[in-house]
Amino acid sequence: MKSLIIVAHGSRREASNQEVRAITGELQATLLQNFDRVACAFLELTEPGVSAQIDAEVAAGATQVTLFPYFLAAGSHVSQDLPELLAQAEQRHPQVAFVSQAHLGKLPGLVECIAQSLRAD
Amino acid sequence: MKSLIIVAHGSRREASNQEVRAITGELQATLLQNFDRVACAFLELTEPGVSAQIDAEVAAGATQVTLFPYFLAAGSHVSQDLPELLAQAEQRHPQVAFVSQAHLGKLPGLVECIAQSLRAD
Repeated sequence: MKSLIIVAHGSRREASNQEVRAITGELQATLLQNFDRVACAFLELTEPGVSAQIDAEVAAGATQVTLFPYFLAAGSHVSQDLPELLAQAEQRHPQVAFVSQAHLGKLPGLVECIAQSLRAD
Repeated sequence: MKSLIIVAHGSRREASNQEVRAITGELQATLLQNFDRVACAFLELTEPGVSAQIDAEVAAGATQVTLFPYFLAAGSHVSQDLPELLAQAEQRHPQVAFVSQAHLGKLPGLVECIAQSLRAD
């Protein structure tokens, strides 16, 4: 069973967290054939945390968990915090395959996606 | 003459600012037919600031300046700070047409862009 976790920073501003949940819902609908479950988790300020959500996915039967960092830049959250959480999860769940995706700012299609919206002007 | 300004937050981590400059360069190459000039500017911590870059575009002859907020969430930077800077710019340059784009997190194609990269797994 394959799970995808969209990892965001988390915000005191609830509307920002809600934007992440909305994108997560849209990805779930779009990726029905690729992932059995799609959830979001947050590094700070907002629940669920990343480790808790990983454990929830494994408890639900996930044999593969993919983490997608919903971050524009590879700051310390992406380059240090998340790999640490991933290493801990691999120790807790040695039977699960973890996949770490490139962060959003590095997606190959991002420039073209932005360009398309700007060409419409 | 049309100018596009990619507006990012700005970071103490120079590599993050460099990611913004790299995306700006790629957008410039991709949007050659749509914008005569493409630059980036930052709300905090990093130069050039947004107002300074707007003034530079106008000084270079821009008659239309488009602002694209390179932000995932519509926090106070996107919903308050940037509109304030835009209103000030409109007062300084009443002869220039300013266009304010939706922020990155709200781009219609973003979900599909993310989904494509995740389907590759």
